[in-house]
Amino acid sequence: MFEARFQTFEEPETGVAPGARLSALREELARQKLTGFAIPRADQQQNEYVAPSEERLAWLTGFTGSAGMAIVLAHEAALFVDGRYTLQAAKQVDGEAWNIEPLVDPPPERWLEQHLKAGDRLGFDPWLHTSAAAERLSAACARAGAELVAVDSNPVDAVWTGRPAPPLGAVAVYSLQFSGEREAEKLDRIRGELAKSGADALLLSDSHAVAWTFNIRGADVSHTPLPLSYALVPKDGRPSVFIDHRKLSNSARDHLEQNADVREPDELRPQLTELAQRGGTIALDNATAAEAVRRLIADAGGKAMPGSDPVALLKAVKNATEIEGTRAAHRRDAKALAQFLAWIDREAPSGALTEIDAVEALESFRRDTGALKDVSFPTISGTGPNGAIVHYRVTRKSNRRIAPGDLLLIDSGAQYEDGTTDVTRTIAIGEPTEEMRDRFTRVLRGHIAIARAVFPDGTTGAQLDTLARQFLWQAGLDFEHGTGHGVGHYLSVHEGPARISKLGTTPLKRGMILSNEPGYYKTDAFGIRIENLELVVAADIAGAEKPINGFETLTLAPIDRRLIDATQLARHELDWLNDYHARVRREVRPALDEPTQQWLDAATEPLLVA
Amino acid sequence: MFEARFQTFEEPETGVAPGARLSALREELARQKLTGFAIPRADQQQNEYVAPSEERLAWLTGFTGSAGMAIVLAHEAALFVDGRYTLQAAKQVDGEAWNIEPLVDPPPERWLEQHLKAGDRLGFDPWLHTSAAAERLSAACARAGAELVAVDSNPVDAVWTGRPAPPLGAVAVYSLQFSGEREAEKLDRIRGELAKSGADALLLSDSHAVAWTFNIRGADVSHTPLPLSYALVPKDGRPSVFIDHRKLSNSARDHLEQNADVREPDELRPQLTELAQRGGTIALDNATAAEAVRRLIADAGGKAMPGSDPVALLKAVKNATEIEGTRAAHRRDAKALAQFLAWIDREAPSGALTEIDAVEALESFRRDTGALKDVSFPTISGTGPNGAIVHYRVTRKSNRRIAPGDLLLIDSGAQYEDGTTDVTRTIAIGEPTEEMRDRFTRVLRGHIAIARAVFPDGTTGAQLDTLARQFLWQAGLDFEHGTGHGVGHYLSVHEGPARISKLGTTPLKRGMILSNEPGYYKTDAFGIRIENLELVVAADIAGAEKPINGFETLTLAPIDRRLIDATQLARHELDWLNDYHARVRREVRPALDEPTQQWLDAATEPLLVA
Repeated sequence: MFEARFQTFEEPETGVAPGARLSALREELARQKLTGFAIPRADQQQNEYVAPSEERLAWLTGFTGSAGMAIVLAHEAALFVDGRYTLQAAKQVDGEAWNIEPLVDPPPERWLEQHLKAGDRLGFDPWLHTSAAAERLSAACARAGAELVAVDSNPVDAVWTGRPAPPLGAVAVYSLQFSGEREAEKLDRIRGELAKSGADALLLSDSHAVAWTFNIRGADVSHTPLPLSYALVPKDGRPSVFIDHRKLSNSARDHLEQNADVREPDELRPQLTELAQRGGTIALDNATAAEAVRRLIADAGGKAMPGSDPVALLKAVKNATEIEGTRAAHRRDAKALAQFLAWIDREAPSGALTEIDAVEALESFRRDTGALKDVSFPTISGTGPNGAIVHYRVTRKSNRRIAPGDLLLIDSGAQYEDGTTDVTRTIAIGEPTEEMRDRFTRVLRGHIAIARAVFPDGTTGAQLDTLARQFLWQAGLDFEHGTGHGVGHYLSVHEGPARISKLGTTPLKRGMILSNEPGYYKTDAFGIRIENLELVVAADIAGAEKPINGFETLTLAPIDRRLIDATQLARHELDWLNDYHARVRREVRPALDEPTQQWLDAATEPLLVA
Repeated sequence: MFEARFQTFEEPETGVAPGARLSALREELARQKLTGFAIPRADQQQNEYVAPSEERLAWLTGFTGSAGMAIVLAHEAALFVDGRYTLQAAKQVDGEAWNIEPLVDPPPERWLEQHLKAGDRLGFDPWLHTSAAAERLSAACARAGAELVAVDSNPVDAVWTGRPAPPLGAVAVYSLQFSGEREAEKLDRIRGELAKSGADALLLSDSHAVAWTFNIRGADVSHTPLPLSYALVPKDGRPSVFIDHRKLSNSARDHLEQNADVREPDELRPQLTELAQRGGTIALDNATAAEAVRRLIADAGGKAMPGSDPVALLKAVKNATEIEGTRAAHRRDAKALAQFLAWIDREAPSGALTEIDAVEALESFRRDTGALKDVSFPTISGTGPNGAIVHYRVTRKSNRRIAPGDLLLIDSGAQYEDGTTDVTRTIAIGEPTEEMRDRFTRVLRGHIAIARAVFPDGTTGAQLDTLARQFLWQAGLDFEHGTGHGVGHYLSVHEGPARISKLGTTPLKRGMILSNEPGYYKTDAFGIRIENLELVVAADIAGAEKPINGFETLTLAPIDRRLIDATQLARHELDWLNDYHARVRREVRPALDEPTQQWLDAATEPLLVA
C-alpha cells in the first residue's frame, strides 16, 4: 500500500566487524610507531550525517550509532558510547576484542589517563577532531606522560580494503525565489562581520555555511541537501569555494564563478598555507574546523582565530522569502499530516498496523504532495514502550504492532525546496489511561507556555526552557532532552546557534525558527512528545517599554483532544488550543478530500471545560 | 523620636579631591618610571564593603561609589563607573582633571588600548586585582604595544598623607549554638574537597570563608561581621590563620589555636613561598585571590590552581542549626516589620514623614528587639521618583517627603547573631493609581511564581529567573537586575555562589537561602519591589520520579493588599497570598501589642475575588 523511499528498516548490521580488521590496524600502528589510535565517529567537518567513506568507526568496530569514539591500544581496545547506545553497542561489537565505556561521564580522556603508559605515543587524525577535542586528548596524554601524535595519513584508511569512494552528489543552484538573497549580498554581510573580527579571512568549514552563502544545495549525505565543501572568504578580493568538480554541472559552476574561484578540495591546504605565510589571521569555526586546519595555519606562520562562525547566526535569521517559503512548506506538510492522522484514526484501532506501516504511510502522503525532496531525518515511530526511547529508530526486528490502549509517538519531518519541517504528534490508540492523559496535559501546558511566551530582545533559549518543564516539575517529572533546536531552511533540521535548552545562550532573534518539543517518557510503558516549529516574531504589545518578541507557530496539525484533561487547563491555555485548532481547520481544510475534512472537523472541535 | 545608629544620611563628599593629589601621584609615577597606573575600588580580598584605609579611589578622585576604577596617564586621567553612578561621579570629581567613562560596555581596557602608546609602562598593584582582571589589563597593554608592570608598593599610598590605619575590629568567637558545626568538622569537609581537587593546600582569601570555617566573627567593615584575614589549609597538618593579633582577645586566640596556627598577616607571603618552593600546588579562589598571590606562588616554583573556593558552596548550604537560627531571626525581624508597617500606615498619610524618618523608625523598631547587631546594608528608602532608583541611598539632601499618592519602597535587613535578614516592601501612601496596582500585581505574580516553584535537584537559578519576569514581559516590561542573591548566616547579606539570575549557573541545593525580589521601576515616577528570603527545601510530591526541591519562605511581613489587583490573580496565586498572610498572622501576632495586632489583622485579611 504505502512505501518509504527515504528510510530503511534494516537492523543495523549485527554481524560484528571481523577481528582481522582490528589486527590489521594494530599492525599498521606498529609500522607507524604508534602505541595507539583514536577513531571518532566523525568526518572532516563534524557533520551529523556522514558519508559511507567516513564510517571508519563502524567499519572497525561494527557499531553503527550516530556518536561514539574508539581507542585502540596494543593490548586493549575500547568503544565509547553514550547511554542511548549502550545496549546497541553490546550487540554490535565483539565483546572479546572491545570494552564498552561511557562517552560522557567520565569522558574517554579519563580512560586514556588510566591506560596509557609514560612514553606511549597515541595517534590521532587531526582532520577528524576539532581543536577543542584535540586539546582534551593532548591533556590526557600529558597527564599520563604520553604523547599525542598527529598522523599524516589515517592508519584505518591504510587497512580499510573496499573503502567506499567519497560521495559525488550533484550540486544544484538554489534559486533566488527560495533563498531571497543574492550571494553577493550575503558575502557583503559576511565581510562586515569579518571586519569586526579583525581577521584577514574567514574559513567556512561547515558545508551548511557554504551552501547558504553561495546559494547551492547538494546530495552528499542523507536527509540534508548538503554539498560537502569548504570556502575561504578574504576580507578583500574573491572568495574561493573548494569542491570536487565532478559534482558541478556547467550551470552550477557558472553560478559559483559569479562570486568565487572554484577550486578542488586538495587546493585548500596550499591556499591556507599561502595566506598564513603572508602572516594572515584566519577566523575559524570552533564547532567544525579540524585541528589539522589550525596546525596548518600555525605551522605556516599565520594566526588561527577560533570563534563562532558568523555565518551560523546570519543563516539562522531567516529573511522574508525564506519565511514565506517555510510557511508554504508547512501548509503543504499539513495536508499530508491530516491525511496521515485521519488514516491512523481509521485503521489503527483494529490493531492491524505496525510502527513501520505508520512511517511508510506518512512518507507516502508527503510524497503525494509532489514536492518532497527527502525526509528531514528518519521518522521516529514508537508505540508502547518503544515510544519511551527518545532516539528510537524502528527496524524490521523492533517493529511493534500498534495496539489499542497504546500511545503512538511519531516524530517526522520533510525537506521541501522552500522549507524544512519537523513535527511530533502523540496519538491515543483506543482508550488512554488517566496517567497518560495527565502526563500528556502537562506536556501540552509546557508546549503552550513556550508557544505563548513573550520576551524582550536579548532573551536566550535558556531563559525560556523552564516554561516548558514547570508543569511536569510540579508532579516530580521531567524530560531529559532540550525543549527545542534551531531549524534550517532547506538545510539541516538541526541548526545552531540558538536553541531552547538550559545550554541555549544565544539570544533569540526575529526570523529564527526553533522547535518546541517538550515530552515525557515512562520507561517500558509509553512516550509523549508534542512538537511544533515556532518562528520568532515581534510581539505587538501596547505600552511596551522595550522591543518584545514572541512566537508564530508554523506547524499545522491537530493535537489529540482525547489525551487532554481539560480540567487542568487554565482559561488562556484552553483559548490557545482552541484558537490553534480553529487556525488549523481554516488553513488546512480547503486542501483536503471530504472524508479527511470530516475527520479534521472532529479533530479540531473546540474543547470545552466540563 | 527614632534614630539610626548604623547608617548615616550625609551627602557623599561633594568637594572634589584636591588636584594636588593627582599631581603628586603623577610625580610618584614618574619616579617609579611608570607612564600610568590603574586604581580599582577594591581591597586585597575584593570585599563589597572596604575599610577606609582601602578607599584609594575616593581619596584620589572624590568619587565614593561602590564600584569603579581610575586610570591615570601622564596627560590624561579617566574614571570608569557604571550607569548607576554616572551622575554621582560627574558631581563628585573635577571635570577638568578627569574624564568619566563607562565601566562595563565598553570596558576600561578598550579605553586603555586607545590611549596607551607603544613602549608605555602601565603600573598596577597586583594585590588589588584578581588574576582575571590582571589578565584583561595585560592583554589591553599588549594590544597597544605597552607593558603592564606590577608594582611592589602602591604609589597612591606613597603620596596619601593621613591615610587611615587598617581596621582592628575585635574578633568574637561564634559559638556552636549558632554555627551548628565545629571547626574541626568543617576542616574535615574542606580537606575532602581539597583531596578531590588534587591540590596540596587551599588558600582562603575570602574573609567570609575564614570566618565560617573557624567560627569567628569580626568588625572590620560596615554591616558585615567580617574579620579581615586569610587562612591556608594544607591537605595534611595544621592550618594557619593570618590575622592581626591586635584583633584577638585571649579567648579568641585560644579558640583559633585549637585548630590552627595563628600568624600575622605579613607571614602569608613567606608561608606561601615556602610551600611553593617545595613544588606545592595551591588552590586559589578565582573571585577573591589577588594576582599577587598567583605570582608569588608561580615565582617560587609552585603551581597556582585557580578555581571556585570550595568553602563558598559549603558555607552556602546552611545546616539545621543555622536554619533554625535564621527562622528565629526572621520571626524577631517580623515583629519590628509589623510595628514599622503599622506606624507608616498610621503616620504617613498626613504627609509629615520623610524617607529618613522611615529609615530611623525601622532601625529603632529593630533595635527594640534587643538583638540587633547591625543593619545588613544601608536601608533603601525611596518614595516617588526616588523609588525608581534601584540602588538609591537617601541623604539629607535627597530626602523626600512621603506624600499621599506616592509609593514607598523600603529595602532593609538586619544582622542578628542567629541570622541575617533582607526584606523589601512597597507601600501605598493614600490612593495608588491603576498603573501602580497593575505593575505591583505583575511583580507579585512573579514573586509568587518563584515562591511556589518546584524543581528537580540540579536546577540552577538561571532556570528559575524567567518565572519572576513572565508577567512583566507580557506587558512589555522588565526589571534590570537579578531576581535573587544568596544570603549568608550572620555574614554577608550578598553571598555566592548561587543566585536567581540568568547568570546563576550554580545548582540550588537544599539549605541554601536566596532572596526573591522581582521589581518594576518607572523612571521619574515610582519603584516597586517585593522581597522575601527563601530557603531551599525538599518538596514532598507523591509519585515524583526524582528528588524535587522547592522554597520555604522565611520572611514574615504583610504584602500591601491595597496594591493588588485581585482580578489578575489565578486561583493558586490568590491561595498562596492568603495562606502566606494567614501564616504571618499566626506566627507574628502573639508578639505584638494590641494596636499593632489590630493593624496586622486588617493587613492580613484574606483577599477575595470580586
